Amino acid sequence: MGTPGSWSNRYLLRVVQKLAGDVPVRMAEDGPGKRPVGGPLQPSVVIRNPRVLPAMVLTPEIGFCDGYSQEQIEVEGDLVRVLEAAYRPARSAMTNVLSRWLDWAQANTLRGSRRNIHHHYDLSNDFYRLWLDREMVYTCAYFPHEDCTLEEAQAAKMDLVCRKLWLRPEETVVEAGCGWGALALHMARHYGVRVKAFNISHEQIVYARERAKREGLSSRVEFIEDDFRNISGRFDAFVSVGMLEHLGKANYAEFGRVIRRTIGDCGRGLLHFIGRNYPRPFSVWIRKRIFPGAYAPSLHEAMNVFEPQDLSVLHVENLRAHYAKTLEHWLARFEQSYQAVAERFGPVFARGWRLYLAGSIAAFRVGGLQLFQVVFAGRKCAAQPWTWSNLYAAETEPPAEEQTQRWIRATS
Amino acid sequence: MGTPGSWSNRYLLRVVQKLAGDVPVRMAEDGPGKRPVGGPLQPSVVIRNPRVLPAMVLTPEIGFCDGYSQEQIEVEGDLVRVLEAAYRPARSAMTNVLSRWLDWAQANTLRGSRRNIHHHYDLSNDFYRLWLDREMVYTCAYFPHEDCTLEEAQAAKMDLVCRKLWLRPEETVVEAGCGWGALALHMARHYGVRVKAFNISHEQIVYARERAKREGLSSRVEFIEDDFRNISGRFDAFVSVGMLEHLGKANYAEFGRVIRRTIGDCGRGLLHFIGRNYPRPFSVWIRKRIFPGAYAPSLHEAMNVFEPQDLSVLHVENLRAHYAKTLEHWLARFEQSYQAVAERFGPVFARGWRLYLAGSIAAFRVGGLQLFQVVFAGRKCAAQPWTWSNLYAAETEPPAEEQTQRWIRATS
Repeated sequence: MGTPGSWSNRYLLRVVQKLAGDVPVRMAEDGPGKRPVGGPLQPSVVIRNPRVLPAMVLTPEIGFCDGYSQEQIEVEGDLVRVLEAAYRPARSAMTNVLSRWLDWAQANTLRGSRRNIHHHYDLSNDFYRLWLDREMVYTCAYFPHEDCTLEEAQAAKMDLVCRKLWLRPEETVVEAGCGWGALALHMARHYGVRVKAFNISHEQIVYARERAKREGLSSRVEFIEDDFRNISGRFDAFVSVGMLEHLGKANYAEFGRVIRRTIGDCGRGLLHFIGRNYPRPFSVWIRKRIFPGAYAPSLHEAMNVFEPQDLSVLHVENLRAHYAKTLEHWLARFEQSYQAVAERFGPVFARGWRLYLAGSIAAFRVGGLQLFQVVFAGRKCAAQPWTWSNLYAAETEPPAEEQTQRWIRATS
Repeated sequence: MGTPGSWSNRYLLRVVQKLAGDVPVRMAEDGPGKRPVGGPLQPSVVIRNPRVLPAMVLTPEIGFCDGYSQEQIEVEGDLVRVLEAAYRPARSAMTNVLSRWLDWAQANTLRGSRRNIHHHYDLSNDFYRLWLDREMVYTCAYFPHEDCTLEEAQAAKMDLVCRKLWLRPEETVVEAGCGWGALALHMARHYGVRVKAFNISHEQIVYARERAKREGLSSRVEFIEDDFRNISGRFDAFVSVGMLEHLGKANYAEFGRVIRRTIGDCGRGLLHFIGRNYPRPFSVWIRKRIFPGAYAPSLHEAMNVFEPQDLSVLHVENLRAHYAKTLEHWLARFEQSYQAVAERFGPVFARGWRLYLAGSIAAFRVGGLQLFQVVFAGRKCAAQPWTWSNLYAAETEPPAEEQTQRWIRATS
């Protein structure tokens, strides 16, 4: 590689600087960064080991992210701001090759999905408990007001989903990809519905079943460790929050068939997923290290779920700013637990996850990623809400828990 | 053709009955339809002249609609209910050929658009005045409550559009396809914005300009008789209500380029258009007799306006049920003025328009047509609403007209 200040390294550094745009990149040997008079340190990228430079040129994203994880790259100043400033779909030829290879290697077949989901969600419940809210909701929250707590915002998101589905007591709901079960339990407790919730993450299902038992909701919520493709039976509503991203666009048509089979002509449903303004592959580094098999569709692509099934799209809301804020809460909690994470999983893992959370904040802030909630219904779905005014009317007064609780006791 | 009761006619009638599904079809000679004991007449189709039968088999839609217009076919019972029951995408091979031919013959080039729009919108302002609301709004209204008057619902629609665009005083708005100018004037009067409104219908532009002058808004609203493709300049917001349907999907990419050129990275906009659950051509009869060049896109197709321009979709609402209700109001007023229409334009025209209005009610009721409002923004659009709760909060208290009026007087 030559010495840090060698001709070849200086050349590579210039190329990397070009890719990084306005964010200054320098070798650690060059001394500390410039500090504007009276201001904070100017955000910059510091290369501590020149061995990362070739990778940063060949596959910029992986080179930077792996280098950062392995402490060969440091970021001075606000990590999120640096990632925002550097955010762009910079893809080299090598990145594209790698991207194609990941498409193939991480395909979400029945078996592939199990492997991909296990990689991320079975890390350990204790890990997620360190930085998620107490209900363990690992999807975009909804902040009726910007200064809500994360706990309030996750409850508000679950209520928003339930109101968008105009759930009524004793209706049946199927959930595809239920995480640790918070939404399924929330729907049963507050809206009086009966839920079958599917998930292929073993750790999550075990956790969800225990929680349902503890909270006396096992008779109303059934947690099933199986792929959504094996859902059978007919339900009034279909809901899936944060699963479409793990499906891969090759499976949208099949997803649509499962939805249609499940709700028929008369049901309705909601999908909540990370999306894009226009089609492009997910970050290769995220797919390699964090979320194997992930793909965030544009609405154009997502319509391939609904249109072949003659499902009507009733309502779409983009909650991108809410995901940036959710991730800010997660990152703040993650930093508070940083030592615990680093001790248990090692510093490379801890730094990688910090980067993933910070990078996601940046992507949602600058619009590289979007968050769509899509409400849809079969053609003969009766009794749709006349307007959506009830979505927000309820924000000031949360669902009358006592009332539905009483109701559940009377019927279960 | 043979006598009404000939073998060939009886055969054709059987084919027509098959196409009509559950709605009984009979020859006028067969005597009156059956009346269930104590009930109203069962809705049915009565063939008064067997010469319409071959056309009803070859191109079912045109055969039925032209036959009805020309009084060779009658409908007993509720016309809308009959059309609802018979509603399905019945397309013969001949219909498909005709559909392709219309695609070509009615293409919305600069010149073609002028011809197509002239056909429909330049019929005469007096004609539309007979059955539209007093502001002459010829697009789907929004009924905050089902029993609103048409006048209230059209005002509510215009407010809904303005709130979705979070308009602020002194901002600039460009409107593509402004009809008789009601929305442009409403935005200027109630929201204090400056508007340039484009339309290629000469009759409508003359009317709108006169109204602006009469209402003292000429300094804030400029009505321009030109194609949207010739819009120049930069605006804070882009709005188009009921124009995408007249564009043809071949022109969506260009429409997107015009929008992006107009609002840049920082603006926002709203499209309001008739759509579909999945792609299919517009009714051939409607295109032949009522709306040349019309096409209602699925959301998948409509995304071709936004995605190539990196525009973020922020909000989509399907107002299908509101369009059915709007059309019910229009049809009721049309029936009240039926004699006046028939005297001035002839009975074939009057019956054709009755059928078009009734058929549209049926299509929106059973879900053959949808009505989408899509809000979008450039990637750097600042100060987007944090939630959409203000969309409905304002429904109980309409915009403080006095206040903005005072504001306009002070600045114009």
